Amino acid sequence: MSLQTIRRTAWVLVAALALTCVVTAMAPASGGADEDGAAIAAGKLPRGYRDWRLISVAHEEGELNDIRAILGNDLAIRAYREGKPFPEGTIIVRIAWKYLPSEENNKTFGRAQSFVAGPPVNGVQFMVKDSKKYASTGGWGFSQFDDGKPADASMLTSCFPCHALITDRDLVFTRYAP
Amino acid sequence: MSLQTIRRTAWVLVAALALTCVVTAMAPASGGADEDGAAIAAGKLPRGYRDWRLISVAHEEGELNDIRAILGNDLAIRAYREGKPFPEGTIIVRIAWKYLPSEENNKTFGRAQSFVAGPPVNGVQFMVKDSKKYASTGGWGFSQFDDGKPADASMLTSCFPCHALITDRDLVFTRYAP
Repeated sequence: MSLQTIRRTAWVLVAALALTCVVTAMAPASGGADEDGAAIAAGKLPRGYRDWRLISVAHEEGELNDIRAILGNDLAIRAYREGKPFPEGTIIVRIAWKYLPSEENNKTFGRAQSFVAGPPVNGVQFMVKDSKKYASTGGWGFSQFDDGKPADASMLTSCFPCHALITDRDLVFTRYAP
Repeated sequence: MSLQTIRRTAWVLVAALALTCVVTAMAPASGGADEDGAAIAAGKLPRGYRDWRLISVAHEEGELNDIRAILGNDLAIRAYREGKPFPEGTIIVRIAWKYLPSEENNKTFGRAQSFVAGPPVNGVQFMVKDSKKYASTGGWGFSQFDDGKPADASMLTSCFPCHALITDRDLVFTRYAP
């Protein structure tokens, strides 16, 4: 092996590692859209979903009686911000907590006005965009996890009819909160 | 330069690059706690704060009439999750949106129960932990931005007296929502 060959080999190694470095740095914190979608389909919570970025928040009265956050994976956030259609692999998650008045906050404000998140309630719900796999439900897979375990499947087919009404936003109720 | 020296140099290079790679991959998406704290102190919104992870959500009635999200930088999230004191550099941000009934959602649910986030209101508020810089306000710097510009400073000293009541959680009202 000539000196020049060794030098070249060394630089190829360095370049390859540098590329790996850039790709690694750009990778999302979660398992990636495919891995996360597969986990959900297999009845497992995708790792790191609680770390996903915030899309919006909401409050439901009535039986639900919760305050909720809607988070999205990187594909979801990008589509929302760029005003583009949700691409394959988009995942949106809805987390919810018991809607509770905060005595502590109210005391500070000097009046009853503050409501905060209590313990988790109403499960964790996902929408996964996979046009082939979920062709029969508008290209979205709907699922719910209760205490980390997938809910009764019969319950999930009930998601689609309501979401199907939101035709102009690809079945997604939640708008991005700027 | 001997063949062995070249080989050694190449491996040192590869090792150094690999280390850089690991450090880069571990770095947060934002500007880093110091940079972000400095930006806020200089009257600028820290870049990427809207991408920070969610601590909790809340609703304020009355004059505020908003629905809000509380996000934290990496130091904040780690301290919350590990149940440890907030370290220097911790930054917590409160974003808020107009509290609006959702006719669209209500129609779907078949009853008036749904409230969502409208346009941003009540500014963007930060708490920055810097025990030396903000020694006179319990080690936290309080600030508010309206339309991206820092609010009247006199308004900000009004934050401290209320926060000072929360002695057992280092002046932080918001609890982490699991």
